[in-house]
Amino acid sequence: MKYPTLLALLALTAAVPAVAQDSGIVRNPIPGSDFPIAQSVEVPAGATILYVSGQVPPVIDESAERGSRAAYGDTETQTVGVLERVEAALVNGGFTMDDVVKMQVFLVGDPEMDGEMDFEGFMRGYTQFFSAERGNLPARSAMEIAGLVVPGWLVEIEVMAAR
Amino acid sequence: MKYPTLLALLALTAAVPAVAQDSGIVRNPIPGSDFPIAQSVEVPAGATILYVSGQVPPVIDESAERGSRAAYGDTETQTVGVLERVEAALVNGGFTMDDVVKMQVFLVGDPEMDGEMDFEGFMRGYTQFFSAERGNLPARSAMEIAGLVVPGWLVEIEVMAAR
Amino acid sequence: MKYPTLLALLALTAAVPAVAQDSGIVRNPIPGSDFPIAQSVEVPAGATILYVSGQVPPVIDESAERGSRAAYGDTETQTVGVLERVEAALVNGGFTMDDVVKMQVFLVGDPEMDGEMDFEGFMRGYTQFFSAERGNLPARSAMEIAGLVVPGWLVEIEVMAAR
Repeated sequence: MKYPTLLALLALTAAVPAVAQDSGIVRNPIPGSDFPIAQSVEVPAGATILYVSGQVPPVIDESAERGSRAAYGDTETQTVGVLERVEAALVNGGFTMDDVVKMQVFLVGDPEMDGEMDFEGFMRGYTQFFSAERGNLPARSAMEIAGLVVPGWLVEIEVMAAR
Repeated sequence: MKYPTLLALLALTAAVPAVAQDSGIVRNPIPGSDFPIAQSVEVPAGATILYVSGQVPPVIDESAERGSRAAYGDTETQTVGVLERVEAALVNGGFTMDDVVKMQVFLVGDPEMDGEMDFEGFMRGYTQFFSAERGNLPARSAMEIAGLVVPGWLVEIEVMAAR
Repeated sequence: MKYPTLLALLALTAAVPAVAQDSGIVRNPIPGSDFPIAQSVEVPAGATILYVSGQVPPVIDESAERGSRAAYGDTETQTVGVLERVEAALVNGGFTMDDVVKMQVFLVGDPEMDGEMDFEGFMRGYTQFFSAERGNLPARSAMEIAGLVVPGWLVEIEVMAAR
């Protein structure tokens, strides 16, 4: 009964420096950090790639003024709505959230937070979809931009997926 | 004589959700929308990719103050000038505008429009080069940024192409 | 003895418009310009790609106020620190600085320079790592954004590499 345990342990050890998937995609963690993004993601030559257009938040309050922040909610709410749209676009293209390899996050300063971007609110939304446990951490960049097309939009997320 | 018709019909049906090109590139439309971008674009493993540097507008008025908005024109004018440069770069690399699969649009607020970005002006330029009819709609993200290297620049566009 | 010379000349001529590497990666220079970026970079179907997360600057002065600009230094200093981290991430993923094919540069206005981005400071850092001589000029976009996650950060750089 020893061998299965040993093998399981070996499998675990082998998985530490990088998570290789059947597809050959390798997600390299950030050394010495548990921040939930990959330091880098390697995509092999044989992969099919899906580039998804930047997704923006859905209206959550139809009674609020059209285009206002109230119509779309705060950054966490918008992030969840945006990522649900990302997921729908991925599925529509034949991919899933677990195939995401790269992400760019564009946040707008929230007028209800002194005009600062709500990065923590974004992270609360993001971690509902991406985690080390799930094994789908993407290479990611995040920043505050000056604005999006509709004044109430605080979040735009662009992803690419590979399999 | 029935079979060819049936097969043609089947082929047509299969082609509805996405435009597959000879290259194997699939452009997935946004469900229920005619907004002229793809929801996503799939690029197969066998594709050659061209990454083009962000292009910026040409001077259109040599008599205007160097680096000023007047030297480069409004957002629509700049967009056309930028996309002509994108096209030149693609051709120089052996590609064409019809090979564009992904685009990022960075707009700067126009001082002559209360500092707001002129998204509609951008769209008027964009649709001169990209359309469903032409079959070259890219996956796209667009946003307002804080500034570009030269004060009068209002538009930077980065594309990648595949064939 | 004429033919070898002619052939060598032809080979030379053919090599002028683009630098082909063993990997099949082609870096197309900007016609009539020595600005140190590629106009475009072609990546062949057989390439393995590494997507690196946006890198941000390290603290250079532990005694300065946490999160302040003083803790991270000016744009040139931050650029060098960021690119050293980019290099570390590349090496950690099995790539090198010479494999970089695409770069995006996100700069924040420097409060000590009237809130303007220090593009020249960035270029002084960038050219320490990328040059025509070294043969590693990437396709690049650069812009000023509204902000990064930590107030003192003035530079975020995202790269992708291929081999």
